[in-house]
Amino acid sequence: MRISEIGEFGLIRRIGKGFSRPSSRVAVGIGDDAAALLCSPSSALLATTDMLIEGVHFDLAYTDFFSLGWKSAAANLSDIAAMGGTPRFCLAALGLPDGVAVEDVAAFYRGLTVLLRRHSTDLVGGDTCRSGKGLIVSITVLGEAGKKQMVLRSGARAGDRIFVTGTLGDSAAGLEILRSVECGVRNREKIKNRGTRAGIKKLIERHLRPVPRVEEGRAVALSQCATAMIDVSDGLSLDLGHICEESGVGAEVHEDLIPLSPALQGAGGLQERPLRYALTGGEDYELLFTVPPSKAGKLAALGIAITEIGVITRKRHIRLVGASGSRKPLVPAGYDHFRRRK
Amino acid sequence: MRISEIGEFGLIRRIGKGFSRPSSRVAVGIGDDAAALLCSPSSALLATTDMLIEGVHFDLAYTDFFSLGWKSAAANLSDIAAMGGTPRFCLAALGLPDGVAVEDVAAFYRGLTVLLRRHSTDLVGGDTCRSGKGLIVSITVLGEAGKKQMVLRSGARAGDRIFVTGTLGDSAAGLEILRSVECGVRNREKIKNRGTRAGIKKLIERHLRPVPRVEEGRAVALSQCATAMIDVSDGLSLDLGHICEESGVGAEVHEDLIPLSPALQGAGGLQERPLRYALTGGEDYELLFTVPPSKAGKLAALGIAITEIGVITRKRHIRLVGASGSRKPLVPAGYDHFRRRK
Repeated sequence: MRISEIGEFGLIRRIGKGFSRPSSRVAVGIGDDAAALLCSPSSALLATTDMLIEGVHFDLAYTDFFSLGWKSAAANLSDIAAMGGTPRFCLAALGLPDGVAVEDVAAFYRGLTVLLRRHSTDLVGGDTCRSGKGLIVSITVLGEAGKKQMVLRSGARAGDRIFVTGTLGDSAAGLEILRSVECGVRNREKIKNRGTRAGIKKLIERHLRPVPRVEEGRAVALSQCATAMIDVSDGLSLDLGHICEESGVGAEVHEDLIPLSPALQGAGGLQERPLRYALTGGEDYELLFTVPPSKAGKLAALGIAITEIGVITRKRHIRLVGASGSRKPLVPAGYDHFRRRK
Repeated sequence: MRISEIGEFGLIRRIGKGFSRPSSRVAVGIGDDAAALLCSPSSALLATTDMLIEGVHFDLAYTDFFSLGWKSAAANLSDIAAMGGTPRFCLAALGLPDGVAVEDVAAFYRGLTVLLRRHSTDLVGGDTCRSGKGLIVSITVLGEAGKKQMVLRSGARAGDRIFVTGTLGDSAAGLEILRSVECGVRNREKIKNRGTRAGIKKLIERHLRPVPRVEEGRAVALSQCATAMIDVSDGLSLDLGHICEESGVGAEVHEDLIPLSPALQGAGGLQERPLRYALTGGEDYELLFTVPPSKAGKLAALGIAITEIGVITRKRHIRLVGASGSRKPLVPAGYDHFRRRK
């Protein structure tokens, strides 16, 4: 069904009915001039927004609408996680080109709300409009964090140890595989060379439906161990660079400590070696955080999958330490929308 | 200067430094994963978002970047006003095509923040990214309203009187004049026919830099007179239609009571008669609200410019009453992005 058949208000009614089942925290949801929301008085309100543009951030040749909705939510939930917060509310604005079917829009909202619901986050408002060219997604997520528990980018101190959740680089490798498939490179022989079928699937899934580390971020914040935290959305080297810049420090990262998944290590035929995807790949949505040595012992009790990868230094350089102990500069490189073309 | 020369992070630094001077309510502003904001515990948090796309919502042939920033803020502030709320925080996401100069982006933020500051609203976050084609603006405004003072769309009852702030139709007439200028129609003779120079300027200004009725909305809400309120962004007939639909009522509007500005009444050479712009024009950002007869007397004390234009009826039709007393259906018509092409 074409959107022009039901119009903007028909579309809003469908979205409101189908995808918004607000909790008791929502005084007014979709359908009025603004949503009215209830927050806890002891918390700070967290707010983050992200714009995703077809042809720049995603390609409908590689992603389905469900995954796109999922990932749009994930990117913003991840920002709340990186503050140590709890996501609460979401607003979604969509610019829709003429050809998009109502069913595709519904699939987008399904993906969006499936992930939101896993994190008890209500879709409370948004906007839908026509786009002259290309699909445009703009998501805002609001959350809460205890005023004393928030973890910023700016608190890292020399001597702090650097930790990261999960594994890095899968998403970028998954994107490369999706692109090569699109270019017609994929065939049985090639797939074999790329590793196991399950491994390939895993890498692609991590690109299309990343899992934001909301529980992990909250656990780290509640433990009050961390001095700084950020989510790895632009690549380890860039995001660690942000922490160092905001904190006025440097860092040394041990090459062989950077956690790589079996899927990434087993994948053949990639253009770069696995480490490269971890350092500059982006879109992993893992959390990177720093902890003073005296508190590092408390982390084990949190029961989350983390790896220590290096240490914060006084000298404001970021260096990569090789297996042999060699040190070389780790130049912040990753995804800058205006300088690199994806 | 091209954005590619300073990159995404250079741009964010400029925006953060130049346009964000956060108040004490902002615990963390631009530059971290999310903004952290302090709200009053006795209020509900209001949240609204709007996406504006070049070629659909605006044309850079008619508007400058300052005005575009101003209007982007106005549209969202107006939504907060329509709830009877106080705007507090703003997040701005921009998709920028390759050709845009840093100076243009700065002018956009100047226009945005000049209006935000008039309403003591902090720019606390956002996103900037490359757009493959066309400028894209997505603004989120957060506000607050006393839980008992919020005015929704759904409370209008039969017998309530209908009021509107300011005058209607100027913005649409202004757009028509801007378009005719762009098409080369404008010449001295034509301008004369369009009314006074000051009148034309006024209409154009109301289109490019609309004034959101934040003070008026708050005054109405605090007086606790109004049963329903909405901002006139899609045109009187459509927005009154929203109130009637949400409230389960109808309305009668008196044609000769609809407030038209001297500029609109004096404008010559327009394609439609002035009333038409008021009924279906949109983007006026005036407030439309309903008040029970017993409370209408209290409105004068508020000291705001309002006009009574009709009455809410039990029968769920919206009718336009002519000067002679004749009644005809007022079909909700205005701007539906997916059905009408601007």
